[in-house]
Amino acid sequence: MAKAWHLMRRPNGMPVAEDFALKDYAMAEMGDGMVRVANRWLSVDPYMRGRMNDAKSYIPAFAIDAPMEGGAVGEVIESRDANFAPGDMVLHMLGWRDEAVAPAAELNKLPAMPGAEPQAFLGNLGVTGGTAYFGLLDAAQAKQGDIVFVSAAAGAVGSAVVQIAKAKGMTVIGSAGGADKCEFVRSLGADEVIDYKAGSVLKQLSAVAPKGIDVYFDNVGGDHLDAALALARQNARFAMCGMIENYNAGAPNSLRYLMLIVAMRIRLQGFIYLDYLDQLGDFHREAGALMATGQLKSRETILEGLDKTPEAFLGLFTGANTGKMLVRI
Amino acid sequence: MAKAWHLMRRPNGMPVAEDFALKDYAMAEMGDGMVRVANRWLSVDPYMRGRMNDAKSYIPAFAIDAPMEGGAVGEVIESRDANFAPGDMVLHMLGWRDEAVAPAAELNKLPAMPGAEPQAFLGNLGVTGGTAYFGLLDAAQAKQGDIVFVSAAAGAVGSAVVQIAKAKGMTVIGSAGGADKCEFVRSLGADEVIDYKAGSVLKQLSAVAPKGIDVYFDNVGGDHLDAALALARQNARFAMCGMIENYNAGAPNSLRYLMLIVAMRIRLQGFIYLDYLDQLGDFHREAGALMATGQLKSRETILEGLDKTPEAFLGLFTGANTGKMLVRI
Repeated sequence: MAKAWHLMRRPNGMPVAEDFALKDYAMAEMGDGMVRVANRWLSVDPYMRGRMNDAKSYIPAFAIDAPMEGGAVGEVIESRDANFAPGDMVLHMLGWRDEAVAPAAELNKLPAMPGAEPQAFLGNLGVTGGTAYFGLLDAAQAKQGDIVFVSAAAGAVGSAVVQIAKAKGMTVIGSAGGADKCEFVRSLGADEVIDYKAGSVLKQLSAVAPKGIDVYFDNVGGDHLDAALALARQNARFAMCGMIENYNAGAPNSLRYLMLIVAMRIRLQGFIYLDYLDQLGDFHREAGALMATGQLKSRETILEGLDKTPEAFLGLFTGANTGKMLVRI
Repeated sequence: MAKAWHLMRRPNGMPVAEDFALKDYAMAEMGDGMVRVANRWLSVDPYMRGRMNDAKSYIPAFAIDAPMEGGAVGEVIESRDANFAPGDMVLHMLGWRDEAVAPAAELNKLPAMPGAEPQAFLGNLGVTGGTAYFGLLDAAQAKQGDIVFVSAAAGAVGSAVVQIAKAKGMTVIGSAGGADKCEFVRSLGADEVIDYKAGSVLKQLSAVAPKGIDVYFDNVGGDHLDAALALARQNARFAMCGMIENYNAGAPNSLRYLMLIVAMRIRLQGFIYLDYLDQLGDFHREAGALMATGQLKSRETILEGLDKTPEAFLGLFTGANTGKMLVRI
């Protein structure tokens, strides 16, 4: 029988393994227009923490004791729809489970892209790469010559930001935690890297950005955001992508330098990937071209087996991943 | 001899009377192209607090033990420039003093505007009115039908925001401190008014803005900003004009709801009046028309005499003013 991870209760602060349970579940019936998919890759992403709260957001909260959802790539094993045939690889949202039956309309065949592995559509060609692309180029209006600071630069989104920014002729400063991750960010082409575990973000950023910054890509909030405000040049633009430091803590952001938003005419722009679905064609074209030239590489942290899904998710908040965190089934 | 207020030391936190001294000062020589002006009206504005710090900003810090500067309206009493004659009323930056000699290029003759009193060019037709106008319509891109929240709504900038927003067909919620100021804000046409001294800003704003807000005009930071974040609707725009709560305190902004900037795609845009000098014509035309129809009224708190200038300035931070704070000489 198919198995799925259920959210058993709403986490209070940092989630723990006991918040989740792996259960047999009843898939939808295989009627006309339905497709059965065996999942091969499951995505875990920081935004999923938000869906565990019972709060209004851009995407509904997870129901309690029901199969969870998330990005997944699977293989069609049975189809009652003319557009899908066994063997097709598809992208869909019925993750956190090994198998699913879904209406054809909820599945997207992976676009033909030579050299792209299927799981890339959960990473550099998917939500994480798209978040980097649209956040950097649209929300922050970053352009050639800008000095760009990106936090969580060794993560899935951050590592794509570093590479896209370098490919577009920007100067890039990345922040990551620990020597290994910093070395990884440097290997992506970042001009400067700071290790936030090694000391004050503000002091380190001041040292490597003596002229200040034009763009900040925020994945974490907190001290990184405050340092970026302190170093912002006139008309700096911040792409506000997420605040992983705050997803679990519930603590307020304490910002000593927010007042500079006025004097320096800084813009903070929140954005989410879902608003750019009509521009996915442009993104796939450009990201595909960068992948073909080796300018946009993927690094993955892979856990094996459906039973590891909560562990993979929880690892996002403890820095267990370098690059994109995935579960392979 | 001419007298001017000098800043004697850099205030630590909230300025006090002892930070200032009224001194005889030597005016510039009356050479060719120079004009002598007797000041009639002096402006005091919250932004001046920033110039008292020794910090990089969009405008240089005040020098210690030298005449201070600020917006002023005066009457020409002697001129060695063909463009100015005794009796002309001029706008200039040599405030905080009773008389000044300045190069003609630093003086602006008050535009002819029927019905406008000279001091209006320090208020609704000057920096405060322009800050309201450009902040609301450009930085926040506010438009007809928007629900607009404005803090310090009984202040010089805030009261102009309320009136311009109402004239443009917006729904307006103002915040002010105390029953008298709230009544004043209501008299300007605000649809709802909250008294921040009477209880939680967040609770009160939630009650009067059940549908949330589209625009926030921030004059204070702190709890008001946090409440605005909590109530922001999708794609809300915040005009970040100043944070009077933080000018003196040096305390960080503690924001519990900043994370919503992502989910609600909120934009915070810092701005300053000086960036819009090329659009002053549009502003004067529109503000003048609103004044002529009575849609943009001025309320002034006036202290009499040069010796009251520091008291007027300090009163900005204790809520002593309703509307524009001025010194009349």
